[in-house]
Amino acid sequence: MVATQVFDLSGYLAERQAIVEAALDQSLPVVYPETIYESMRYSLMAGGKRLRPILCLATCEMLGGTVEMALPTACALEMIHTMSLIHDDLPAMDNDDYRRGKLTNHKVYGEDIAILAGDGLLTYAFEYIAARTTGVPSDRTLQVIVHLSRAVGAAGLVGGQVVDLESEGKPDVTLETLTWIHRHKTGALLEASVVCGAILAGASAEDQQRLSRYSQDIGLAFQIVDDVLDLTATPEELGKSVGKDLQAQKATYPSFWDIEESKRQAAQLIASAKAELSPYGTRAQPLLAIADYITARTH
Amino acid sequence: MVATQVFDLSGYLAERQAIVEAALDQSLPVVYPETIYESMRYSLMAGGKRLRPILCLATCEMLGGTVEMALPTACALEMIHTMSLIHDDLPAMDNDDYRRGKLTNHKVYGEDIAILAGDGLLTYAFEYIAARTTGVPSDRTLQVIVHLSRAVGAAGLVGGQVVDLESEGKPDVTLETLTWIHRHKTGALLEASVVCGAILAGASAEDQQRLSRYSQDIGLAFQIVDDVLDLTATPEELGKSVGKDLQAQKATYPSFWDIEESKRQAAQLIASAKAELSPYGTRAQPLLAIADYITARTH
Repeated sequence: MVATQVFDLSGYLAERQAIVEAALDQSLPVVYPETIYESMRYSLMAGGKRLRPILCLATCEMLGGTVEMALPTACALEMIHTMSLIHDDLPAMDNDDYRRGKLTNHKVYGEDIAILAGDGLLTYAFEYIAARTTGVPSDRTLQVIVHLSRAVGAAGLVGGQVVDLESEGKPDVTLETLTWIHRHKTGALLEASVVCGAILAGASAEDQQRLSRYSQDIGLAFQIVDDVLDLTATPEELGKSVGKDLQAQKATYPSFWDIEESKRQAAQLIASAKAELSPYGTRAQPLLAIADYITARTH
Repeated sequence: MVATQVFDLSGYLAERQAIVEAALDQSLPVVYPETIYESMRYSLMAGGKRLRPILCLATCEMLGGTVEMALPTACALEMIHTMSLIHDDLPAMDNDDYRRGKLTNHKVYGEDIAILAGDGLLTYAFEYIAARTTGVPSDRTLQVIVHLSRAVGAAGLVGGQVVDLESEGKPDVTLETLTWIHRHKTGALLEASVVCGAILAGASAEDQQRLSRYSQDIGLAFQIVDDVLDLTATPEELGKSVGKDLQAQKATYPSFWDIEESKRQAAQLIASAKAELSPYGTRAQPLLAIADYITARTH
């Protein structure tokens, strides 16, 4: 695996993050009525790793597409991710006052504006793909909208959130249900990030399926690692309080497997994910390195 | 105006409503996780005149398109309208317990599910257009998504809702602000209903602009008539309590003009709207009759 060892992932991520930050910043100017645009921008520009946009750009490029082709969709993915965080944080949902060390949207703008900011971002994501995608045949752009909307709606992220809410405080959540929640609540949008990048590049159905498996595997591995870190990391490493899942009596992977077995399962998923990339040779370096990064991370 | 006199509008509306009801009923089967689909269906199938879908179908047909071409977009318009009602009714917004004599979504399913049902319907609307539109070139379908999403987001419905919230309890709302609110909060989606029907039929830019003016005029006339009815109708005629706007100290058209002048302004808008339809001859009968129906209505 010489290829991935010499690949400078942190340089790659920093460069891509800068492209995405600039594109997001440009995507949403503040006009009348200012409150709603400021509220949407407050959460959209609140930082984060921009992993979904980066996965989308990386996949599109790996398959011979360009950054320009995928950038509107990459921005849309972050708009949708941001919408889901704003609505999740609402008092009627997780009731969180802080996210990434900043007050949550409704704490700054009020619940009414926060609900509308989420609606605005979700709507704008589809507008942005439909209006801004260039250099791509229209039927491909439509396919992106179909794939992404399925990942976000009741058959994806929204459905995952519903089952998560219904499972709260239930001690008898099964491993199957836990995995269903993760595959939908967070997995579906990660999958769409990769597969939409592939669609934009004109990928075959076989390539789309292969990359769908890659993204599902890294998505699930990410969750398992998250659950493990909540038990094993120090608050300093994690940048937030630890043991939250235990306190909240939330079902986690280490509550089904022990910590060692959880780590082994995550490593196996990452190995499977990387195996899916074998047809793409050195072009797969970024996606290979991102897969490794997920199990190596400490926060 | 012999043409509009012989046109059987109530028969036309009943027939179109039946087509839309059947299409909506089919659009959203209940699968796992059932709660979210049931919640989405509860509000989507709660009745209503289905005016937006009917406007979309009528415009598409007037310009030589078919019902089949426009039906997915027609359903999407009602999904989005329903989403806006669910979110508007939330405790953080208008805090309404009833709508059309039925408990509001959050009173039945809880606030968390109601927020997610709105998100699900909004997302599904775009999926439905992108995945189900047939017999229409892909670039036209993309144009529909662009036009509709602009009508719904911060530049449209969501922005109108924000200014409406900000104007609550303010005695100094100007006529310009009142009109801005209506043009965005309700007008933009009505406009999109008509213009998206036109786009699907392959309308020229000139026809799209003409029909945009038609729909903006009838949308504003509808609001003026609404405000007048709130002051002049009996509760029996209106099917709901009257004088609500006065009680809520809401700015209305009769608070700037008297009732007679409000009626005159509405009639003038309807006349302008109908004048826009002159190029379409007898094919415009349904849209002409719908315009007349707005000022003639008593509830």
